[in-house]
Amino acid sequence: MSTNGKKVRVGILGASGYTGAELLRFLVRHPRVEIVLLTADRKAGSSIDQVFPHLAGEGLPKLVTIEEADFTKVDTVFCALPHATTQQVVKKLPKHLRVVDLSADFRFQDVETYAKWYGHEHLAPDLQKEAVYGLTEIERGAISNASLIAVPGCYPTSALLPLVPLVESGEIVKDDIVIDSKSGVTGAGRAAKEQNLYAEVAEGIHAYNIANHRHSAEIEQGLSKAAGRPIVVNFTPHLMPMNRGILSTIYVRLENGATPDSIRETLKKRYAGEAFVKVVDKDVVPATRHVRGSNLCLIGVFADRVKGRAIICSVIDNLVKGASGQAIQDFNRMHGFAETLGIDHAPMFP
Amino acid sequence: MSTNGKKVRVGILGASGYTGAELLRFLVRHPRVEIVLLTADRKAGSSIDQVFPHLAGEGLPKLVTIEEADFTKVDTVFCALPHATTQQVVKKLPKHLRVVDLSADFRFQDVETYAKWYGHEHLAPDLQKEAVYGLTEIERGAISNASLIAVPGCYPTSALLPLVPLVESGEIVKDDIVIDSKSGVTGAGRAAKEQNLYAEVAEGIHAYNIANHRHSAEIEQGLSKAAGRPIVVNFTPHLMPMNRGILSTIYVRLENGATPDSIRETLKKRYAGEAFVKVVDKDVVPATRHVRGSNLCLIGVFADRVKGRAIICSVIDNLVKGASGQAIQDFNRMHGFAETLGIDHAPMFP
Amino acid sequence: MSTNGKKVRVGILGASGYTGAELLRFLVRHPRVEIVLLTADRKAGSSIDQVFPHLAGEGLPKLVTIEEADFTKVDTVFCALPHATTQQVVKKLPKHLRVVDLSADFRFQDVETYAKWYGHEHLAPDLQKEAVYGLTEIERGAISNASLIAVPGCYPTSALLPLVPLVESGEIVKDDIVIDSKSGVTGAGRAAKEQNLYAEVAEGIHAYNIANHRHSAEIEQGLSKAAGRPIVVNFTPHLMPMNRGILSTIYVRLENGATPDSIRETLKKRYAGEAFVKVVDKDVVPATRHVRGSNLCLIGVFADRVKGRAIICSVIDNLVKGASGQAIQDFNRMHGFAETLGIDHAPMFP
Amino acid sequence: MSTNGKKVRVGILGASGYTGAELLRFLVRHPRVEIVLLTADRKAGSSIDQVFPHLAGEGLPKLVTIEEADFTKVDTVFCALPHATTQQVVKKLPKHLRVVDLSADFRFQDVETYAKWYGHEHLAPDLQKEAVYGLTEIERGAISNASLIAVPGCYPTSALLPLVPLVESGEIVKDDIVIDSKSGVTGAGRAAKEQNLYAEVAEGIHAYNIANHRHSAEIEQGLSKAAGRPIVVNFTPHLMPMNRGILSTIYVRLENGATPDSIRETLKKRYAGEAFVKVVDKDVVPATRHVRGSNLCLIGVFADRVKGRAIICSVIDNLVKGASGQAIQDFNRMHGFAETLGIDHAPMFP
Repeated sequence: MSTNGKKVRVGILGASGYTGAELLRFLVRHPRVEIVLLTADRKAGSSIDQVFPHLAGEGLPKLVTIEEADFTKVDTVFCALPHATTQQVVKKLPKHLRVVDLSADFRFQDVETYAKWYGHEHLAPDLQKEAVYGLTEIERGAISNASLIAVPGCYPTSALLPLVPLVESGEIVKDDIVIDSKSGVTGAGRAAKEQNLYAEVAEGIHAYNIANHRHSAEIEQGLSKAAGRPIVVNFTPHLMPMNRGILSTIYVRLENGATPDSIRETLKKRYAGEAFVKVVDKDVVPATRHVRGSNLCLIGVFADRVKGRAIICSVIDNLVKGASGQAIQDFNRMHGFAETLGIDHAPMFP
Repeated sequence: MSTNGKKVRVGILGASGYTGAELLRFLVRHPRVEIVLLTADRKAGSSIDQVFPHLAGEGLPKLVTIEEADFTKVDTVFCALPHATTQQVVKKLPKHLRVVDLSADFRFQDVETYAKWYGHEHLAPDLQKEAVYGLTEIERGAISNASLIAVPGCYPTSALLPLVPLVESGEIVKDDIVIDSKSGVTGAGRAAKEQNLYAEVAEGIHAYNIANHRHSAEIEQGLSKAAGRPIVVNFTPHLMPMNRGILSTIYVRLENGATPDSIRETLKKRYAGEAFVKVVDKDVVPATRHVRGSNLCLIGVFADRVKGRAIICSVIDNLVKGASGQAIQDFNRMHGFAETLGIDHAPMFP
Repeated sequence: MSTNGKKVRVGILGASGYTGAELLRFLVRHPRVEIVLLTADRKAGSSIDQVFPHLAGEGLPKLVTIEEADFTKVDTVFCALPHATTQQVVKKLPKHLRVVDLSADFRFQDVETYAKWYGHEHLAPDLQKEAVYGLTEIERGAISNASLIAVPGCYPTSALLPLVPLVESGEIVKDDIVIDSKSGVTGAGRAAKEQNLYAEVAEGIHAYNIANHRHSAEIEQGLSKAAGRPIVVNFTPHLMPMNRGILSTIYVRLENGATPDSIRETLKKRYAGEAFVKVVDKDVVPATRHVRGSNLCLIGVFADRVKGRAIICSVIDNLVKGASGQAIQDFNRMHGFAETLGIDHAPMFP
Repeated sequence: MSTNGKKVRVGILGASGYTGAELLRFLVRHPRVEIVLLTADRKAGSSIDQVFPHLAGEGLPKLVTIEEADFTKVDTVFCALPHATTQQVVKKLPKHLRVVDLSADFRFQDVETYAKWYGHEHLAPDLQKEAVYGLTEIERGAISNASLIAVPGCYPTSALLPLVPLVESGEIVKDDIVIDSKSGVTGAGRAAKEQNLYAEVAEGIHAYNIANHRHSAEIEQGLSKAAGRPIVVNFTPHLMPMNRGILSTIYVRLENGATPDSIRETLKKRYAGEAFVKVVDKDVVPATRHVRGSNLCLIGVFADRVKGRAIICSVIDNLVKGASGQAIQDFNRMHGFAETLGIDHAPMFP
């Protein structure tokens, strides 16, 4: 658990997007990491200076295609590729590599669920069996020994951290959960799409993929596992004008004598001692700007005017705890480092 | 109903805030309005050029205090003052004036409700009896003959327009309504408060006044009237970085055989022929940027993954249909003009 | 000059971009316009509801390709197509059509200048001879009789309105003009490009096309004509996070006894009586938010600490006075309507 | 120069503003700092959790008034107080304290200059003599031994880093320098002022304090020292909608055979080996988003179309290299630590 010692030689596949940039932001200063390989298909041949001028001068390797990549001197890869592509790439990787995958490809224990939501048969069902779902605070044990980590989606991270303990404790009605999530734009990636242009996003908000966002399935998988039976949730994502951040406002009905105070207490106990998941005190309202740039998840619990209901607010930075930060947290755990190593930044406000 | 004819001489009390600016934007081009009086206590003595440089050159009167105001040549006043102050001012106004009030002061039929939520006894309970709640499409008849209009709050407008017809039709469970609203910053007014500074709002989102926002009471009053019995709702407002706009995402449980399609149809019928309230087709998602600067309310209905539930998205510009635009719509109706006169602007996108 | 009378039947070529949307915003309410044709190549076959949901319900024609367009019942077309394409389209249009073109294709009197800056021979050099540069306040006479108007670029409009009168009056040194311009994002159009994504633009600013932006040539053409000899300027555009607006901060050296006060006076005299160009008083600072959504250009003049220098601030909304608003102003003039008809909106603040 | 060793006990006076927050962001992770005192007059008695929820859980001391402060166990104070107040506070501080001051109070070697620009006699002229101007890369020697550092203003930092070497080398005309600066909103501090509200800043830009901003004097002091004679510059600041960042676009005239390439080379040589000041290659355009959250200053040089002129773009994060980051860089130097200690964060993009 030291900051000194042999470095892990790391490659990043798909380094030119926003999660790639965020992996690099942390990894260039990570005391136990040496970045030895960067791939980016469309931008192969470019230097990092051209793709990410903010990282110029860090001495990073040139971008190459995956075909050109030399994996012999790589220990672990972070994979930040699109879904479907990921499966094809990962199944061909040399077996000595440990893989931390940020795509959706290995998140579903049931490959049929994957096929249903992603529209095609899973191409690496055998690998799926090995994959560990990397929601660190919930799956810590399995992560330590994993060779393939499926880093959770951003929305599921924001929803499962508060909800799993409450489904387990039996304090909320399992079939009456409404999750209204608001996300910054980087969650949509760096692809040049009209709907993500500045002028289409600034100064407005709208829901999207109502009742059919793929993260619904991932949230339901996590809650169903906690409940021991299938759970269906209402999950409605919204796109809003900010670079980073997710706020999930979650509406629950209480049962078995639970109160807003009791569920706050349940969460406080569950996450006592955690470096990155914090349950705030009564009347403190979590805001996305309080976690910006950090690996934190803040959770607040509030009584509702409607009797027997409670409101939970959960905030993360979608690029950090919702993607690259949690990926490194899992990486740290896989390699026996302190989970906080290299990602213990204080939030950047404003 | 002509654009020609004698002009109504109009005064605006509290003209230097954002709703004042928005009243002026429309009224300076309204064919049947002559602006003869503008008051603004803190900024009295200033010209409009100093307070609103964007309105320089429109030939508007200088700002005066209410004490200095000469009401003898005024026919109708728009009142854009803070709550409590409003009651004291309105009860002293000359009786020949018709009043369109944008504050919360006269919105509650029951003065006890006002007292409970606003923390002090109502100071003009007699006037309250005369006041008509100016949600135009719902209360059109009463508005025509009113001498005192209480223009609805921005959140209540966005929530009541979709919900009142469904409560009346009996298609939704009245005690299981969740309203998750997202608002632009102008809803908080122009007062210099730390929490509304650019750097406190940009690039983030948070809920506020959870379970105790005063607009809860106004929404509940409207729904209770429609239901014929008291209704309590879950209403959670959020502050987000945009100047204008409210999106209310409303989660309802269906009953009496209702389906998402049936409630969309109920709303379409109810608002057929309306100039400003539009129910969009299946799969069309309303966005705040589609109503920016206009008096429109767009409503969309969606099936939920959870059986027996539906999701309603309702968008308005908080400064227009949520305040000054609806005020002028009511004003038009009071004076026998076409409701659209002077406010029929197409939305400004982007 | 009446708002009543026979309507002009208008087509818009390239209606699905931001300048198309802005033409539509004004033209759907223009009392002398009937919109009979809309083209949009990539989005042909779509209804306006799909492309611009904010204009749903306006009864607009379906989008067709230019090949499908029936021009027999069209009087005037607004052309909002990309450069180069425009030339090819316009030279094939039926001769009865009057054309208001928003592209750069017909802005250069000298086709060699076009070829040099746009990288290919001009494809319709004969038409170029007929084209009139549509900077309304400067070229008003020629516009009245024109059959082909080249609407000026957004940056040139913001720079030429203040500078042409001063070059003509001989009060500024013609070879020492620095134009530092800041633009909103819609100036870059609606094409899906990585550099215009929300996350690439929000919360930052940078210069671009330093010393080689094509609008340099257009500014220089205008100033050279005013000076009677070639003038070269320093023009540096910047991209910043706002939807609309251009601020040009212009640094000039005074000569022939001129002072900041004298050049302000020269500009005030020149634009006295103009509806859309306003020279503000001493110490008033023009801001882009004071012209948002309007066809206004505000100009302010300031003394510099460096002796013999002055600073001029000029603001427009790039989509209105910098594109679609000025196009309609020219259209009005061409058809003998009041220049302000249909575009006399007060600015939208905030 | 080690990260291990005895910690410096640090106090922050005026900790509740944006520069205070930024000092804390870095100092809570600084390996050689222990934060033992925080003052904030208006918010005294509050915990940091209330003032800066993003720093909750860091174990920081409660906010006290300056009168309540116990300085006996403090080694060094960062002073983030308003000007004028600062002088009064600093002159009463115990003599054992070393002071890093972020205000303007000790930046002027000539107390008359201070009096002229700040409107009152300097209250601690003796202390002024001891103060060292903390522009680290330029004044490194003096900083090492200083007991009182005056951290430069944000605009001056962005202007002096590129200009001082060029004034010294004689490659630019000293009396023809135009500095057009664009700043994010945090530069204006956290005081609740109408002009800094979200709705007054978002979606717009304007110049302010034209030709009379106090930072003019600070820039001129730095350039005059480099030139050995008085220099007056044109400096025009602009306020734009972003939290952080300054871009200074600087227009210079070349002399003594200089070219854009030669001045880029001069700057590259001057800053070779610097950790925080980087001169980018030809054709690379510095953007504020490339330095966000970091202590970097990026400088680019470009040829102008006007012969004999060049354009320099300089970007910093106003809260880091323009304030708190540079303060810690100076602090590190004062205490013999590596200058980069605790502030060597990679920029946060997006």
